[in-house]
Amino acid sequence: MTGLRYETDSMGSIPVPADKYWGAQTQRSIEHFPIGVNRFRWERPMIRALGILKLAAAKANAELGTLPGTIADPIEQAAQEVVDGKLDEHFPLVVFQTGSGTQSNMNANEVIANRAIEICGGEIGSKKPIHPNDHVNCGQSSNDTFPTAMYIAVIEELEQQLIPVIGHLKQTLDAKAVAYANIVKTGRTHLQDATPITLGQEISAWVAQLDFALAGIQASKAGVLELAIGGTAVGTGLNAHPEFGERTAAYIASITGYPFHAADNKFFALSAHDALVQASAALRTLAGALMKIANDVRWLASGPRCGIGELVIPENEPGSSIMPGKVNPTQCEALTMVCVQVFGNDAAVAFAGSQGNFQLNVYKPVMVHNVLESIHLLADSCRAFDEHCASGIEPNLARIEEHLADNLMLVTALNKHIGYDKAAMIAKTAHHQGLRLREAAIASGYLTAEEFDLWISPLEMAEPHKHK
Amino acid sequence: MTGLRYETDSMGSIPVPADKYWGAQTQRSIEHFPIGVNRFRWERPMIRALGILKLAAAKANAELGTLPGTIADPIEQAAQEVVDGKLDEHFPLVVFQTGSGTQSNMNANEVIANRAIEICGGEIGSKKPIHPNDHVNCGQSSNDTFPTAMYIAVIEELEQQLIPVIGHLKQTLDAKAVAYANIVKTGRTHLQDATPITLGQEISAWVAQLDFALAGIQASKAGVLELAIGGTAVGTGLNAHPEFGERTAAYIASITGYPFHAADNKFFALSAHDALVQASAALRTLAGALMKIANDVRWLASGPRCGIGELVIPENEPGSSIMPGKVNPTQCEALTMVCVQVFGNDAAVAFAGSQGNFQLNVYKPVMVHNVLESIHLLADSCRAFDEHCASGIEPNLARIEEHLADNLMLVTALNKHIGYDKAAMIAKTAHHQGLRLREAAIASGYLTAEEFDLWISPLEMAEPHKHK
Amino acid sequence: MTGLRYETDSMGSIPVPADKYWGAQTQRSIEHFPIGVNRFRWERPMIRALGILKLAAAKANAELGTLPGTIADPIEQAAQEVVDGKLDEHFPLVVFQTGSGTQSNMNANEVIANRAIEICGGEIGSKKPIHPNDHVNCGQSSNDTFPTAMYIAVIEELEQQLIPVIGHLKQTLDAKAVAYANIVKTGRTHLQDATPITLGQEISAWVAQLDFALAGIQASKAGVLELAIGGTAVGTGLNAHPEFGERTAAYIASITGYPFHAADNKFFALSAHDALVQASAALRTLAGALMKIANDVRWLASGPRCGIGELVIPENEPGSSIMPGKVNPTQCEALTMVCVQVFGNDAAVAFAGSQGNFQLNVYKPVMVHNVLESIHLLADSCRAFDEHCASGIEPNLARIEEHLADNLMLVTALNKHIGYDKAAMIAKTAHHQGLRLREAAIASGYLTAEEFDLWISPLEMAEPHKHK
Amino acid sequence: MTGLRYETDSMGSIPVPADKYWGAQTQRSIEHFPIGVNRFRWERPMIRALGILKLAAAKANAELGTLPGTIADPIEQAAQEVVDGKLDEHFPLVVFQTGSGTQSNMNANEVIANRAIEICGGEIGSKKPIHPNDHVNCGQSSNDTFPTAMYIAVIEELEQQLIPVIGHLKQTLDAKAVAYANIVKTGRTHLQDATPITLGQEISAWVAQLDFALAGIQASKAGVLELAIGGTAVGTGLNAHPEFGERTAAYIASITGYPFHAADNKFFALSAHDALVQASAALRTLAGALMKIANDVRWLASGPRCGIGELVIPENEPGSSIMPGKVNPTQCEALTMVCVQVFGNDAAVAFAGSQGNFQLNVYKPVMVHNVLESIHLLADSCRAFDEHCASGIEPNLARIEEHLADNLMLVTALNKHIGYDKAAMIAKTAHHQGLRLREAAIASGYLTAEEFDLWISPLEMAEPHKHK
Repeated sequence: MTGLRYETDSMGSIPVPADKYWGAQTQRSIEHFPIGVNRFRWERPMIRALGILKLAAAKANAELGTLPGTIADPIEQAAQEVVDGKLDEHFPLVVFQTGSGTQSNMNANEVIANRAIEICGGEIGSKKPIHPNDHVNCGQSSNDTFPTAMYIAVIEELEQQLIPVIGHLKQTLDAKAVAYANIVKTGRTHLQDATPITLGQEISAWVAQLDFALAGIQASKAGVLELAIGGTAVGTGLNAHPEFGERTAAYIASITGYPFHAADNKFFALSAHDALVQASAALRTLAGALMKIANDVRWLASGPRCGIGELVIPENEPGSSIMPGKVNPTQCEALTMVCVQVFGNDAAVAFAGSQGNFQLNVYKPVMVHNVLESIHLLADSCRAFDEHCASGIEPNLARIEEHLADNLMLVTALNKHIGYDKAAMIAKTAHHQGLRLREAAIASGYLTAEEFDLWISPLEMAEPHKHK
Repeated sequence: MTGLRYETDSMGSIPVPADKYWGAQTQRSIEHFPIGVNRFRWERPMIRALGILKLAAAKANAELGTLPGTIADPIEQAAQEVVDGKLDEHFPLVVFQTGSGTQSNMNANEVIANRAIEICGGEIGSKKPIHPNDHVNCGQSSNDTFPTAMYIAVIEELEQQLIPVIGHLKQTLDAKAVAYANIVKTGRTHLQDATPITLGQEISAWVAQLDFALAGIQASKAGVLELAIGGTAVGTGLNAHPEFGERTAAYIASITGYPFHAADNKFFALSAHDALVQASAALRTLAGALMKIANDVRWLASGPRCGIGELVIPENEPGSSIMPGKVNPTQCEALTMVCVQVFGNDAAVAFAGSQGNFQLNVYKPVMVHNVLESIHLLADSCRAFDEHCASGIEPNLARIEEHLADNLMLVTALNKHIGYDKAAMIAKTAHHQGLRLREAAIASGYLTAEEFDLWISPLEMAEPHKHK
Repeated sequence: MTGLRYETDSMGSIPVPADKYWGAQTQRSIEHFPIGVNRFRWERPMIRALGILKLAAAKANAELGTLPGTIADPIEQAAQEVVDGKLDEHFPLVVFQTGSGTQSNMNANEVIANRAIEICGGEIGSKKPIHPNDHVNCGQSSNDTFPTAMYIAVIEELEQQLIPVIGHLKQTLDAKAVAYANIVKTGRTHLQDATPITLGQEISAWVAQLDFALAGIQASKAGVLELAIGGTAVGTGLNAHPEFGERTAAYIASITGYPFHAADNKFFALSAHDALVQASAALRTLAGALMKIANDVRWLASGPRCGIGELVIPENEPGSSIMPGKVNPTQCEALTMVCVQVFGNDAAVAFAGSQGNFQLNVYKPVMVHNVLESIHLLADSCRAFDEHCASGIEPNLARIEEHLADNLMLVTALNKHIGYDKAAMIAKTAHHQGLRLREAAIASGYLTAEEFDLWISPLEMAEPHKHK
Repeated sequence: MTGLRYETDSMGSIPVPADKYWGAQTQRSIEHFPIGVNRFRWERPMIRALGILKLAAAKANAELGTLPGTIADPIEQAAQEVVDGKLDEHFPLVVFQTGSGTQSNMNANEVIANRAIEICGGEIGSKKPIHPNDHVNCGQSSNDTFPTAMYIAVIEELEQQLIPVIGHLKQTLDAKAVAYANIVKTGRTHLQDATPITLGQEISAWVAQLDFALAGIQASKAGVLELAIGGTAVGTGLNAHPEFGERTAAYIASITGYPFHAADNKFFALSAHDALVQASAALRTLAGALMKIANDVRWLASGPRCGIGELVIPENEPGSSIMPGKVNPTQCEALTMVCVQVFGNDAAVAFAGSQGNFQLNVYKPVMVHNVLESIHLLADSCRAFDEHCASGIEPNLARIEEHLADNLMLVTALNKHIGYDKAAMIAKTAHHQGLRLREAAIASGYLTAEEFDLWISPLEMAEPHKHK
């Protein structure tokens, strides 16, 4: 630390590190909220989003004449630096602070004001010629800026992190579904042997789940694109120009490339974040789908000899510190751990979302934190799962065939020829006497060997409508 | 009970009550699953849905020639009786049974078969001329029929129970928002006095939340309209006519009036119910919104003398068995209790939805049970809240005016005239010295009494863009 | 219905069914809270608990002289009838009502008062000589009586329903653990083949989980045995005799046989139900354990031919409406569905438990409802699982031996002889070349056939400390 | 980075940073699991716990003769450096990895082995004379070491972080309860004015909640003190000396000062972590209590003029970026955000805990991560809340008295004199006509002014048994 300077706010004067741009309110937050400091500092997405918001607000204020160019220009320049990540070290605050994110909004105001003052050749901390509240925060309140930044961050991370990764994983699995479209294997219901399917069909269900989850995530963006900006303190827009909200939103849209706009009802936009609750739910649906997929993969790859063993997955690392040669489905494990984390994060988001009062929900930081964490964990783990597991899935043909030959549920094809009750009797006899199905069927006298071979074809059972 | 008869299935013979249409598999389920019998028997919606499904399936089978008219006709007649609620007493099974709902599908098959046999003049239990599996279940498996019935029930209950009730509550609140559009009052953020709003604005946020939640519920129907029917045991459609699924779905659409169709990917349709998870999440979002609304109502009506007291709500019943004359916000309490129940139900649905394996999710009954329960509880409690609370909300004008006159945050209107820092000083002085804001402002010397009266208008602060 | 009579309360007069003992406040609740009526009426445990409480209170009031014997005696007689279940039809109210349970307390007061009036030969509805508030509720408020009844119900149901059933299931599994103590089989970690264990060891882990869960449930009773009675409206005990709480609690203990006592801090006892939250958490831990156990059972019984197939479980009912001869692990499915329901119920309880304000938590009914439901579902499903599945579990010896012979992880026994790295090389060679471990070991040159046979003994590996 | 060296494991050779002690398996994990890298690296508690475990294991191995002193000594020295935090930079792995924590166990083995080799003057990476598996991991498997380290970390953090902080917060509140024992104020139930209490009584309920929660946390330690060590790969203890587990546990107890011991049933200790689920539930109960307390504080401090305003809390920072002079209950907001996070974390832990299969639960890292995070967040936020809010709580006497004078529920004291029904009539009249209670009472004719003054004493109502 290079010494201290004094910064003031409405509560008085307080020393801050001289080499940092932040001011009094940021410093008070550091001192009053030493909570989870190692893990819960805001990261790039939220800092960038605050920068985008302040940049857009300055542009709108300049355009509307609510700030003169001599003030707006250096603010824009400083805000751009925040956007570009040049000032990240000046954002020391954590999630667990004021529930409106006021202190992070003020952190942005203070840093941008001081940096803009510096650009203007003024004295840092003097609030002249740029005041953090009167100028950087012009036409704004934490209550509309912080949720605006939240939504910017969530949309950017969804679009840039999660959606492409899920799309790629889907492609990987879809290619597998096509490649293995002709491998007939045992279907399983209730964990019990069932009628045949193709491996391609089995994988196609995973692709369809990802498709459904992705559609849900895409749909959930609509609410998140509606910004609180323009509502100021309680939703009325007091102290903001009537066009400020919509113009700022338009600049945000133009900076980010995403179709943001100002929310129709600003009272709703400040007092509830149901759009984040819905987005979190869409992430939970994805997590539920991934849990099903990862579980299927590891169960189908279980064994290698005393499990199902129908799939072979990449051997990425030694599996055991004591059992030599063991290979474990580690990508599935990491992915399913992420899934339970996403379920937990979602529970926090929904709980927080229900706890608003009057004109404000004061669980904003914890809501956006959890949504962003879920996005990042899902993106990271799906990318790793895709690269190090899904793309390397191979069928174990010998095992698949062995199982298919053993599968008593081929008997289902006989229903239409001899009826359910007789078919059931054949299957039970085979099961209890340890016979192959063909043996038991012929011994039953209900059909001949020729009929058996004619009527029972695993491939036709897997694709009955294709082959008939 | 009027004696017993014997029914058989592939496991043998078993006595059942002679006056009931159900057969052996239903009876086995009764005996093996005495779990939550008082509360967890399937109710009208699922029984009706099973009837609709079986009716539609019989029509499709008749049309496709997979069942002769002599078989299909009595099945249709019996299924129609199930639809109409005439056979509810013959559906004794509970939620906690086989995870595919097999036993409830068989319950429907057995009841319809025996009733159809009776219609044909046959002997109940003889399976002639109508067999529960070969005929009533023709082209079907529990694995595709039960989820089809689940989705029919959920759509019908959403459409007929929940959506109209929420629509009505929204209208009630919207009318209040309009009626109270000109009542200026204290806004509140962080539970602290904030700048003014109108009561109409405050209520409009509740309406917007309901709008958002309703849109989410409407959107969630899309996935639930895609039916598993046609997938049979594992998704391949084995033993069903290639057109059976789509034609049955079309009949279901025609019977119910809702645009059901057969799912594109039947493997997905059997192995995951992510559409229910999403629907449940939409209900949770509604519950979160209702919790905010009900909390706002009861806090605004708190007191009557030592709380906020700005709203008056209907006095429906004595509030206390010990405190005479006490009136409590009981409708808010019932509604928020429903909200936490819906959160819990949703947690169960999402957990269950993640636990599928291979070609089947075997948590079907518990998923649909919780979604239906949430729908019914939300519908019932919103209807009661609407009638017995929301429609009777009145402002306590004296209290509202008293609060507004006391509210120091009117100072915010001074920001643009004297700057944030000086305005803050005035407010703090007033607060700590117990002064009215006007007194402290004038005493500060930063503005004159005339300026104060000119600059500070609660109505203009509440609607700054309207009045400027 | 046999006509109407008029009952009055502090809000006026209202018609009630003439053949029912309830009064005006119960009737108002019926009319204002038609929420979930089919499923959410209070059942025996809560009605009985309210009866026990009113009986004990009357005894305490008589003893303390706060009620004369001529009043207390008929109240006791009527309360005893409530305890005994003779008046259940007079308790029509549902869970979703006033959040303090006021209306159910008044339901008890009204029914007991009217029945006591009848016993005295008075006129039902006249409140003479027995007044529901002044006499039946003497020294009480809903705020202390309802939570007292909640805790009585929870303790009784834990003790009488759940704890014995879990104890019995534990015995069943323990007997299996002993019976199969010498069956050596493949262990599995990460779903992959691992070093050997005995089937007895495997089952012993389930027993240990149940032991742990049961200990948690037992420990959670402590908080639930502390009763709110004596706190009256806000915890101060206003209008109650100073000894009323402790004496009533003593009578409750004597009536039920469980060591109830009055809570030390009544303010806590009314404003929070953390003891129920903890009890619910203990039920959730049990549910988590049961999910592990039921999953293990169904996976070990998976197949019969294309899964693990090491256990055979009872065939209770036909498994599939389309696949003849299929047998499914239906008890495991019902049990795991109960487990997810218990997780959901617990989420509701914990959420509700966090929402108290000031001197009262107004989520009482929904909290006790969910705890009781979890208790009953766990008891019912564990009883069914015990009888229809666990007690019939048998090993499939042929399969177990076949798997053990194939298991490459026997190589772990070589670590101490040739080191981890060489052992790993042998296992990998065997795996990739499809060799038995013995072949690959000898071919490696790191050990001789004699050494292999000497060093590798599955039984010794399963019980290394017993056999060395 | 200072160049690379090659490290090998059973999968081959791989380059690692030359200035780091970790080996091949750690490196593979870095490359395969780039998931949440910024936030999810293991921190001090788990690294220290792994060091403690390896130190204790080396001591036990030396004592039992399973490692010679020439090997054990340098391992102990290196492990001590891990314990002391000297090697933290050599632990780069994250939570989302292999579900058994194998890679973190190997990270410890590799770092300690290489550092011990260095101490011995050997060549890093040579595995001579110290081998990470054969020596550092001697008698161990990831499956027993990682959960052992988990439990060490949880106990240490509970004891050193959370428990003292909660104890201190309790003292702060208890002192307030004593200090304000004689301040009589309005009680509130259903958010409505109720009979009087003292402020001391109100605060005593918070203290009692913390007491209850702390007792639950203390009780939950029992299960966490039972260590998996000695179970090795599947619970049988294969490759470990029969006394290794208990002796290692004894060393862990001696190093930490906490009464750890080896679990009775090692199969349970590897395959389930129900003790963590229970500990997490105890943290959730604490979070629920804190939510009640923080909500009470902020509601009682709401206003300052348009809310309840009976408490004054410290003004720590400017409350609003737009509303000058606003002071918000920011510590309450941070604390309640932590509470919802703990609820979410707990949901993840319980879900993960239910997902074990056979001999292993592979959600270990995510379970311990969430429990540790909850501990730290609760400790940090309670410390901040204690220092910056609770210790500064003051009553606003003027407001308290004003409310008390207005409170109609003082009428409850009349029940015993004039009966509930007449008392109710008086309160209602006062309410609807805007009268003070005394006026309405006298006007009713049911009592005289003298009787009113004699019978109604707020102090006696708050402490009825003290003053009688």
